[in-house]
Amino acid sequence: MPVISHRGASMPPSPIRKLVPYAEAAKAKGLKVFHLNIGQPDIETPPEILDAVKHTDMKVLDYSHSAGFESYRKKLVGYYAKNGVDVTYEDIIVTTGGSEAILFAIMSCLDPGDEIIIPEPFYANYNGFATSAGVNIVPIESSIDDGFALPTIADFEQAVTTRTKAIMICNPNNPTGYLYSREELETLRDICLKNNLFLFSDEAYREFCYDGRDHISALSLEGLEEHAVLLDTVSKRYSACGARIGALVSKNKQLMGAAMKFAQARLSPPSLAQILAEAAIDLPDDYFVGVHAEYNARRDLLVGRLQAMEGVKCPMPGGAFYAIAELPVDDSEKFCMWLLEEFSHNGATLMMAPAAGFYFTTGKGSREVRLAYVLKKDDINEAMDCLEEALKQYSATIL
Amino acid sequence: MPVISHRGASMPPSPIRKLVPYAEAAKAKGLKVFHLNIGQPDIETPPEILDAVKHTDMKVLDYSHSAGFESYRKKLVGYYAKNGVDVTYEDIIVTTGGSEAILFAIMSCLDPGDEIIIPEPFYANYNGFATSAGVNIVPIESSIDDGFALPTIADFEQAVTTRTKAIMICNPNNPTGYLYSREELETLRDICLKNNLFLFSDEAYREFCYDGRDHISALSLEGLEEHAVLLDTVSKRYSACGARIGALVSKNKQLMGAAMKFAQARLSPPSLAQILAEAAIDLPDDYFVGVHAEYNARRDLLVGRLQAMEGVKCPMPGGAFYAIAELPVDDSEKFCMWLLEEFSHNGATLMMAPAAGFYFTTGKGSREVRLAYVLKKDDINEAMDCLEEALKQYSATIL
Repeated sequence: MPVISHRGASMPPSPIRKLVPYAEAAKAKGLKVFHLNIGQPDIETPPEILDAVKHTDMKVLDYSHSAGFESYRKKLVGYYAKNGVDVTYEDIIVTTGGSEAILFAIMSCLDPGDEIIIPEPFYANYNGFATSAGVNIVPIESSIDDGFALPTIADFEQAVTTRTKAIMICNPNNPTGYLYSREELETLRDICLKNNLFLFSDEAYREFCYDGRDHISALSLEGLEEHAVLLDTVSKRYSACGARIGALVSKNKQLMGAAMKFAQARLSPPSLAQILAEAAIDLPDDYFVGVHAEYNARRDLLVGRLQAMEGVKCPMPGGAFYAIAELPVDDSEKFCMWLLEEFSHNGATLMMAPAAGFYFTTGKGSREVRLAYVLKKDDINEAMDCLEEALKQYSATIL
Repeated sequence: MPVISHRGASMPPSPIRKLVPYAEAAKAKGLKVFHLNIGQPDIETPPEILDAVKHTDMKVLDYSHSAGFESYRKKLVGYYAKNGVDVTYEDIIVTTGGSEAILFAIMSCLDPGDEIIIPEPFYANYNGFATSAGVNIVPIESSIDDGFALPTIADFEQAVTTRTKAIMICNPNNPTGYLYSREELETLRDICLKNNLFLFSDEAYREFCYDGRDHISALSLEGLEEHAVLLDTVSKRYSACGARIGALVSKNKQLMGAAMKFAQARLSPPSLAQILAEAAIDLPDDYFVGVHAEYNARRDLLVGRLQAMEGVKCPMPGGAFYAIAELPVDDSEKFCMWLLEEFSHNGATLMMAPAAGFYFTTGKGSREVRLAYVLKKDDINEAMDCLEEALKQYSATIL
């Protein structure tokens, strides 16, 4: 029998996937399972943008331009301008989800054996794309005790080698919810300029910043124009994860030229979903007001409940729709399995993502979980009732 | 300024792209340009399958399963059974176009530095995916004088090294239109079994076989179950290139396990287009009868016209919707540019793909072009009038 590649064998499994059979078994037993484990919002996709697809009069569903509809890219220029990012439509390649933007950026800028510095914990799939590309991730730790703030300049400087080609951030952050300040971003800029590195900035959650704070895009930083690479997606912004429409945005012509060849090799991003994404640009500005208020309220509720639980540590996240909490348990993966296998409260239980899967360094985050506040407030409340009760019972179990 | 990767810099450009500005200039001059250069069919996408998308009642456009809708995969089992391929839905991963199926197969089976043998000329984007994966293509020549039949066993044996992991074919073939016989496929099977290689079989054009011949899938070959990897797409089958829905199909569990991790890293294939692809399975069996008859008539017309031109060599293709022709010109790329820049006949000209772009070996195919018969018969006739006249004028020019 032919054998698969080392690359294929070493692809990291999804950190969430492992618990899925446990959740299915819990449901089979008749339990209600609150899914706080994944970033799949329950917010409705704006009907207007689904309608745009439904009303298309296309006769032939043909390839689009490899960089995406020109009309869509031109509208995106206006969208980015509203968000403080000054680009032309030629600085934009529409990608198949944010995922493909990440892959194109890594492939275009790093060769096998090259290194990319990423503060951990980080979005686990960065690891999968790095493995695909044969690239090595060099993690530096952001700590729950600092609320997951940017690591220090010294931490970055220590991690830089001759093989370092890029730093990658997610802002606001998945999984921590941390929103980087202007000062932190300027620190990153200085490190990138000094060491001649690309800055990959995953800004999937741009619209979700709280406490009156503004989002600052890496591409708006003066002097970083040739270094900053914006990785974007409509998935979370418009509750349209299944569209698979994202964007790679950069003013570095050499990089865009290379990325365009990766884009041409796969022909085009999905056409139907581009109709939807293009229509989304025309949503009224107040669309986000309602969505933002909803997430803000969910955050306050979820984190408030967590902070009120004995022994739980949960920094208030400034953005996105995730929080990381440290729990008074021996091992969060074991606890999450126990929640699905052994526990129930009023016929329900909850599913969370053990945070160890978001740390590159083995052993880190073993008492932490990531919670996505993508459910209605009533459901969050019930889920927190479950968690509160579960922690009492579980403590008793392990003592 | 940070520098891009060697990988990014060495990505091959699309062989067709180079002529695009010339075509645009021709159109700007008011010329009608017949596009025989790309495999974008003009056949309408079946309205029923577009309607399936238009009638969706989804409220949240969410991620699908990373392997695609389970309902769709279960229907695909029936589709493959009708085509002599016996698989379960767990042998299928729905991909973002056939492109992603190719990438996942290469990534899962080959490491950087490993080799894949491909008869040339071949679909140019294989080269892009190999470059992405750091994999080396080892071409062996199929010749226009044999009608692009499978190279000999000796050719394959000579090309196999300790780094060879797979052979890749496209059947029926893009760009040659060649349809492999059962005997040829059994030869390939024996080579793969003897040398323990995967056989990647791109069967995008399965439905388009002519002269009463049947398509034989690599996955239907007895004894090759663990070696055969079917790469598929709905693009050409239903004239739905912009859907970006394909499939990776294999009975090799280890391979599918690895491919699934690549699939999970990118989350899911596009949801809207999966609705369309799933609806396509329910098209009446006679849907292909009409489409097939149309392509068959176009083939007969195009190839008949080419074969009647003095000095033109064009083997009759057995499948797909491409033909390769050797022209009585000094250099086909130069000729194709001349057609767009200098030539017109009754206010029109034609665009073809210089075949050198489909050969891996520099210098090969320099007098050949690929023509896609994706236009209506009247347009093909007019395009052939142009070509016939052009060859006369061009011969005069270069003499």
